[in-house]
Amino acid sequence: MAVDSSGLEILDEPQCRELLRDAEVGRVALTVNGLPMIFPVNFRFIGDHVLFLTGTGTKLAAALAHAIVAFEVDHADPVTRSGWSVHLIGIASLSRSIADFAEADLADLEPWTPATRPYLVAIQPYEITGRRLPAPALLERNDIPA
Amino acid sequence: MAVDSSGLEILDEPQCRELLRDAEVGRVALTVNGLPMIFPVNFRFIGDHVLFLTGTGTKLAAALAHAIVAFEVDHADPVTRSGWSVHLIGIASLSRSIADFAEADLADLEPWTPATRPYLVAIQPYEITGRRLPAPALLERNDIPA
Repeated sequence: MAVDSSGLEILDEPQCRELLRDAEVGRVALTVNGLPMIFPVNFRFIGDHVLFLTGTGTKLAAALAHAIVAFEVDHADPVTRSGWSVHLIGIASLSRSIADFAEADLADLEPWTPATRPYLVAIQPYEITGRRLPAPALLERNDIPA
Repeated sequence: MAVDSSGLEILDEPQCRELLRDAEVGRVALTVNGLPMIFPVNFRFIGDHVLFLTGTGTKLAAALAHAIVAFEVDHADPVTRSGWSVHLIGIASLSRSIADFAEADLADLEPWTPATRPYLVAIQPYEITGRRLPAPALLERNDIPA
């Protein structure tokens, strides 16, 4: 397993895609008036796109502008101080093809908020990277002399 | 409780600060070469600053440049579809005052990774906002006719 300069395991793209498919909540980062902003979203990773529903607002504006956005999912375990994260950079757009998706898939996208969120935003990734930090206890156990 | 256009409860600044003080893992968004990027970090919120340790790299460069960054913590419960998020915009800088912090506070900042992370980065917030989505079940229970 390759590690980066921080000593984190480098996940390959298939591993990153698998983690994206299993996740439900991620974060989109946009540049708004020159400032970065982070928005948590419930999403699905289908057909190599990050998909989420939104209402009128900043995220819709980014999709209409085909903005380049970052998207991130992670899992952290403070007890074992282990975790992983997957990061992608991609182009946001308004998806006109809700009919292309199975009803079951879209049901999972149903917004948690009471507000109507009728717009399906897709992020098409052009770079997916991931890192994993295994639980140190597992490493230490291997270090115990026989 | 005030709600925003999405029907989310608006948290006031004291509530946001309390959530920041209780959290351990958050995400920094930076603009790198014009592109947004998101980095998970373990952090502490002390003296009205977000503090985290880093090594040589993008986050250190942002601190040295006094970059404007976003920082976000959230909690989501997919079962009840409830959660909260706190977002801040602030100026990153390299803190030269490690001695100003109690040892116990800095111990919590100890990096999870095996790599050395000797630089203490502080984000001084100038805007803190938060939203909460209460568990719908609690609302529905109130709707049950007597």
